[in-house]
Amino acid sequence: MTTEKQNAKEHELHDRRARLLGPAYRLFYDRPLHLVRGEGVWLYDCEGRAYLDVYNNVPHVGHCHPHVVEALARQAATLNTHTRYLHETVLDLAERLTAMLPRELDTCMFACTGSEANELAVRIARSYTGGEGFIVTEHAYHGNTNTVVTLSPVHEYVARDASVQLVPAPDGYRGRYRFGTPDLGRQYASHVDEALNALDQHGVKPAALIVDTIFSSDGIYTETADYLRLAVDKVRSAGGVFIADEVQPGFGRTGERMWGFERHGVVPDIVTMGKPMGNGHPLSAVVTTRAIIEKFAERARYFNTFGGNPVSCAAGLAVLEVMESEKLQDNARNVGAHLKQKLELQLSKHEIIGDVRGQGLYIGLELVSDRKTREPASREASAVVNGLRDRGVLTGTTGRDGNVLKLRPPLVFSTENADQLIDALDATLCDVLS
Amino acid sequence: MTTEKQNAKEHELHDRRARLLGPAYRLFYDRPLHLVRGEGVWLYDCEGRAYLDVYNNVPHVGHCHPHVVEALARQAATLNTHTRYLHETVLDLAERLTAMLPRELDTCMFACTGSEANELAVRIARSYTGGEGFIVTEHAYHGNTNTVVTLSPVHEYVARDASVQLVPAPDGYRGRYRFGTPDLGRQYASHVDEALNALDQHGVKPAALIVDTIFSSDGIYTETADYLRLAVDKVRSAGGVFIADEVQPGFGRTGERMWGFERHGVVPDIVTMGKPMGNGHPLSAVVTTRAIIEKFAERARYFNTFGGNPVSCAAGLAVLEVMESEKLQDNARNVGAHLKQKLELQLSKHEIIGDVRGQGLYIGLELVSDRKTREPASREASAVVNGLRDRGVLTGTTGRDGNVLKLRPPLVFSTENADQLIDALDATLCDVLS
Repeated sequence: MTTEKQNAKEHELHDRRARLLGPAYRLFYDRPLHLVRGEGVWLYDCEGRAYLDVYNNVPHVGHCHPHVVEALARQAATLNTHTRYLHETVLDLAERLTAMLPRELDTCMFACTGSEANELAVRIARSYTGGEGFIVTEHAYHGNTNTVVTLSPVHEYVARDASVQLVPAPDGYRGRYRFGTPDLGRQYASHVDEALNALDQHGVKPAALIVDTIFSSDGIYTETADYLRLAVDKVRSAGGVFIADEVQPGFGRTGERMWGFERHGVVPDIVTMGKPMGNGHPLSAVVTTRAIIEKFAERARYFNTFGGNPVSCAAGLAVLEVMESEKLQDNARNVGAHLKQKLELQLSKHEIIGDVRGQGLYIGLELVSDRKTREPASREASAVVNGLRDRGVLTGTTGRDGNVLKLRPPLVFSTENADQLIDALDATLCDVLS
Repeated sequence: MTTEKQNAKEHELHDRRARLLGPAYRLFYDRPLHLVRGEGVWLYDCEGRAYLDVYNNVPHVGHCHPHVVEALARQAATLNTHTRYLHETVLDLAERLTAMLPRELDTCMFACTGSEANELAVRIARSYTGGEGFIVTEHAYHGNTNTVVTLSPVHEYVARDASVQLVPAPDGYRGRYRFGTPDLGRQYASHVDEALNALDQHGVKPAALIVDTIFSSDGIYTETADYLRLAVDKVRSAGGVFIADEVQPGFGRTGERMWGFERHGVVPDIVTMGKPMGNGHPLSAVVTTRAIIEKFAERARYFNTFGGNPVSCAAGLAVLEVMESEKLQDNARNVGAHLKQKLELQLSKHEIIGDVRGQGLYIGLELVSDRKTREPASREASAVVNGLRDRGVLTGTTGRDGNVLKLRPPLVFSTENADQLIDALDATLCDVLS
């Protein structure tokens, strides 16, 4: 229950926030959450109420995991410098990361955020190919800095010139070509030909196709046939490279595989990673091949003051250690399969659920007002997210129409947590649709 | 003394590093340092040898300051989320920062690095002015991402188009107009007129003049008459704004004032800050006026996953607390004055010292092979930096010719430390010049 004291506190915080941070920031939920503590998959507000976190992928191994906190605190008390001095930790982390990737992806560079990793990937791709053209999916998100924001059509207000070409994400449920269409992957990949032609007509040489390999902000697509392999072939034939943005699907989230690109049978030229990497500590990386980085380094240098510092790298190593000791990739596979199966059972109960998709602990639940027309139930999706919040379960939405529930919990999510989510969802759907 | 074991270890690290991080990274010193521990102004290598840190401004309140480490560890063990939930810490930090700035600079946004802060400042300036033109000094550094790297002519390999115009930094010692020239500030500011004309000729509307208010990578200039005030007036008359990049001079480093721009008698439209803000933890900010951010927010939104998270903000608050409790701005003023005086005494002893300049604990020592011609002694400056390293004192160089010794220690640097530096410098200069 909400107390008067809690309400007053929240109003005060809300006003201070509007005054100090200004109007460019947004809060989640109709009634924003004031959180004070986190542990595992649970977040707590100032009255001690618990919320099951089914949204946050950043606390990958669980909120405030003691092993990560200890590694962070120990290194912060010992030494924090930068990559212009020799230090083992950055090398240990680079060694672990490159060992988790295909052999040719052997060189690792560090930054602090996904935006910075993608900015560096863009610099490297431009330098290696001599091109300036980029191809992205129609509702992609790749970051908030000037260049990558133009590669993020999810922000409709951003102006783009002809050097950025959009292609439809391979949405077999409600997209241009649907499941059952022969050669679905080939159909979607044909738009990459169009994009390459458009670049050519504008006299722009292609630099890269950059894809979030689980198409998170497009709407979460995992059944994409051979789309990505075909698309990458086309881009490479035209002289461009393939940048796999693994900020969302990477680090075992999809269960079966460590990286999203592995599900598509392609080896990227450049891989970027971020969010879950430091369990909340700002840490990101770019991994690429020796040939590509040598070309880049013929003229350019890279230094990032905080990127690859010993404290950040200690946090990154601790995350990998927990993933291994707690078998979290296996957990993502097993709990993800359990959750997906339970969600599919909800299909028969709730007409509003149009599609259940995803892999491991990255699941999308598309809500539609009509299963035949597949009209997006955007308003209802928002009501469900707010209803779940009131029942103590945190989720969000994604996709162009905001009608896809995004289920993306920390990887320590258990089958019991999955069942708690299902019960709350079932009750909330009944409420919303009553 | 260097042991054989130490040598072997350093070689092994060097090889691993080249293999794992690739050729775009650089190390400091002819014989790179392998550091394992830091405390206050001291860094230690794996054999326990101590190095006096006269270079690193990031550990602003001293390496591994226990108050900052404790704040970081405590918050990391409690909660780490993002700005889409309500949290006090980000507001407390924003309140502290805006209270330290002129009243009109009342809105604060958070990112992780100086590059990200400058990228956001550029987005805001573009949106507020409708312009695309930027004016920067000839050897400036403002970051490593695609847009701000074009505003960083210190990287000579970066291509720029006509939307970026360069102006000379106000170097009264060896620049176009020298001390004694009447109207020195006006002379340098006239180049801003030229830059504005060049933008106009290319049909580019100006967005901003962006200046590191201590001209760090240009060569550290503190005696700049009324240059900046005049330059800012010109840019504003043409419809542009002034972005003060305080990543280097901010947070009391210059002693007399909290911010570099205050020394110039101007109030910026946008202030960016970074490096020292989290004492090594990745944390940066943009502070601007309500009118400017309201214009930006008419269309744009800003979200940075790690920017403004409770752990980063706890570190930022702890830094401000230590600055206050240990009176570090006063220390910067007092020790800086002592150091500068001692360095000026060295002028009479070492002919190679052409100029001593700077403010507080940001001092430049320009080395010249001839005091009359002011020919830069770049080779000797490199020898001095490496000689000081061998004597256990860490410094670096700056300026177009790499002949300016950059003395920029943590703010806990004491007069005793200053004397240790002077002794080592005196001996090293004798060695190098013998």
